[in-house]
Amino acid sequence: MNRQIWAEGIGTALLLIGVVGSGIMGEALAAGNTAVALLANAIATGCMLFVIITVQGPISGAHFNPAVTLAFRLRGQITTGMALAYVAAQVAGGLIGVWLTHLMFDLPILQVSQTMHRSGIGQWSSEIIATLGLLFVIFGGLKARADQVPVLVAIYITGAYWFTSSTSFANPAVTVARSFSDTFAGIWPGHAPMFIAMQLIAVGLAAPLLPRLLEE
Amino acid sequence: MNRQIWAEGIGTALLLIGVVGSGIMGEALAAGNTAVALLANAIATGCMLFVIITVQGPISGAHFNPAVTLAFRLRGQITTGMALAYVAAQVAGGLIGVWLTHLMFDLPILQVSQTMHRSGIGQWSSEIIATLGLLFVIFGGLKARADQVPVLVAIYITGAYWFTSSTSFANPAVTVARSFSDTFAGIWPGHAPMFIAMQLIAVGLAAPLLPRLLEE
Amino acid sequence: MNRQIWAEGIGTALLLIGVVGSGIMGEALAAGNTAVALLANAIATGCMLFVIITVQGPISGAHFNPAVTLAFRLRGQITTGMALAYVAAQVAGGLIGVWLTHLMFDLPILQVSQTMHRSGIGQWSSEIIATLGLLFVIFGGLKARADQVPVLVAIYITGAYWFTSSTSFANPAVTVARSFSDTFAGIWPGHAPMFIAMQLIAVGLAAPLLPRLLEE
Amino acid sequence: MNRQIWAEGIGTALLLIGVVGSGIMGEALAAGNTAVALLANAIATGCMLFVIITVQGPISGAHFNPAVTLAFRLRGQITTGMALAYVAAQVAGGLIGVWLTHLMFDLPILQVSQTMHRSGIGQWSSEIIATLGLLFVIFGGLKARADQVPVLVAIYITGAYWFTSSTSFANPAVTVARSFSDTFAGIWPGHAPMFIAMQLIAVGLAAPLLPRLLEE
Repeated sequence: MNRQIWAEGIGTALLLIGVVGSGIMGEALAAGNTAVALLANAIATGCMLFVIITVQGPISGAHFNPAVTLAFRLRGQITTGMALAYVAAQVAGGLIGVWLTHLMFDLPILQVSQTMHRSGIGQWSSEIIATLGLLFVIFGGLKARADQVPVLVAIYITGAYWFTSSTSFANPAVTVARSFSDTFAGIWPGHAPMFIAMQLIAVGLAAPLLPRLLEE
Repeated sequence: MNRQIWAEGIGTALLLIGVVGSGIMGEALAAGNTAVALLANAIATGCMLFVIITVQGPISGAHFNPAVTLAFRLRGQITTGMALAYVAAQVAGGLIGVWLTHLMFDLPILQVSQTMHRSGIGQWSSEIIATLGLLFVIFGGLKARADQVPVLVAIYITGAYWFTSSTSFANPAVTVARSFSDTFAGIWPGHAPMFIAMQLIAVGLAAPLLPRLLEE
Repeated sequence: MNRQIWAEGIGTALLLIGVVGSGIMGEALAAGNTAVALLANAIATGCMLFVIITVQGPISGAHFNPAVTLAFRLRGQITTGMALAYVAAQVAGGLIGVWLTHLMFDLPILQVSQTMHRSGIGQWSSEIIATLGLLFVIFGGLKARADQVPVLVAIYITGAYWFTSSTSFANPAVTVARSFSDTFAGIWPGHAPMFIAMQLIAVGLAAPLLPRLLEE
Repeated sequence: MNRQIWAEGIGTALLLIGVVGSGIMGEALAAGNTAVALLANAIATGCMLFVIITVQGPISGAHFNPAVTLAFRLRGQITTGMALAYVAAQVAGGLIGVWLTHLMFDLPILQVSQTMHRSGIGQWSSEIIATLGLLFVIFGGLKARADQVPVLVAIYITGAYWFTSSTSFANPAVTVARSFSDTFAGIWPGHAPMFIAMQLIAVGLAAPLLPRLLEE
């Protein structure tokens, strides 16, 4: 048990290093072309996801995401106690990842995001669709080609940075952690609860829908 | 049967979210550098194609494209009734995908494209070549490495955004759906019929040619 | 035999569509940022290579390159007659690919490149190293992971656009064909012979070297 | 033995060609948009890594990195004599790779980097985290999916160019070699020792940590 929970914490820390670090670097170098910054951000995030899911999949299942852990809980594939431990490790790991990133970029360790545009119908519907898509990819991928789930999730998120207006947080632990970074990937803490609510709504929608669509 | 048709509709909706959403995001952020916007658009489209073909291939065959369904019909690998149901689901799914994308980007849901440059010999020959290439990749890939068809199609289309002047629609359902979005990926409805005609001509050319080239 | 030769011609035509088409599109859209154009060019070329080598590898071996055919000839793995037929198909296919590309982009079909900077010690040493690297990847890949040769060649060339000053032509048929396009990928015909000479020198160097390095 | 050591030297030379060559090309073409240059640099480096690790993995294990060789030595999977020979080949190969790159780009062969910003807490902590991550990927990958180690390392480094402030040298031989190139990828020789020290500290930290995390 212990090793699984460590894996969830370390994996989520690495995920946030990938997301926040590449956002900082991209914005710093892109000379005002935000699309180039987001391209680097999306590619680096996909790279990190592929690596951590491949390496830690056999250990913990590589959730790194409370929404995913909840979806597995609803399917009865993880106990409530373990699910709570996973979520705690994910949230703690995410915060540590953000702080390590700030250390690497010589920024103040403790920050609160002032990024104010992550709100509104477009952003909220994006989070529902992004999270539904993520669960579709995970559970559909497990059924169709289980060995390809790491690349499927990585590639899906790389694309989803672009085809949703919210850039697809799709992960409550990532949402919390990003509210503690006043950098490219940040989200003002006051907007985080609605993002998390949308992500959980998607888990609720996926629970009855996916088994029918995928004939699980 | 039902589940297959749902898969075609949902997959095509997701495909249009990938195409139209990343076009909107790319153009919005690229600060006038259209090549950066198209790069994001091409990469995100390839990501979505890889994901939906991998997950839904075992369910419906993952056509998401009336030209592909027609090619399978000409080979006798799908019945006429099922082919018509597939095409209806693809067209409906494509439209729903475009409308969901507009919702995600806080745009008016119902739009008609005013993009007027998708016409002329170059564009039309591009659509013939792009569609021939797509069928070559699908049927050649099924023969050479069937497990690699998802990545083959995704990678082919990512490249084809660049090496054809039309950016390779190569799909009548996608063409119809994109005529209902006045954004980066749009096509003026008056130009859509010629695009679709070229795509169907390519299906007609491929029917006798591919079996010889691939010694099927 | 016939089908193999057709495969070499069609594959090389598709390769040139990938190289020249994406160069035209990239340059047209990149607003003067040549790195963005080259990035699109490199990615699209890699995409096309992956697709054509995967699909046509089982048919003809997917050389698409007289330098590669010569290397196989020196290893006794193809007859002289077949090798000559391959080379003829590659050169003809390359030209046809360039002309189809000009058609797709509404450009004059017959052109002669005026690009004058592809000459000098740096460019020539680049072509030797690029071609040596390509043969290393092909023959080393065949020994280490034969099923991965398509992705190895595609990924190698995508990178080699950047790490050689010549952008790695590494292919006499491609060199000839690109001298007939006065676009981004062009080479002034007067500079083509030295490129081809360097590519053939690399084949000569690889013949004794690679078997020792790879312990074939 | 001989062939293994040659493989380490040649592989490291190719790695430096990938890193330094694409840095020169990227900076030359990017018109001041450093993010585009770094994107090309990261992608080309990943391409080269995938190719050389796939081809030479079966020959030498494809370390190309004294930190990796030291980690294998600490695990008792390579003898001290062989490890020293590997490191000597890596350092020599790296230098030769840099000089061949300068030849290809018509630059003075012998150079000393004047790039002065690679110092400070952020850069040093980046090198510790980057190297720890690399070892996590290699040893975790060997346990989880040994056939995927080439793509895992390539993808990890492509991402790590972005999510660390140092762009992840994570390799003492690469650090030495890059101090001899006054180009985009250079590092002032006075800053190289601290980079190497951080990389070795990471090897020391990984030795007790990784076996616990990965339950090796």
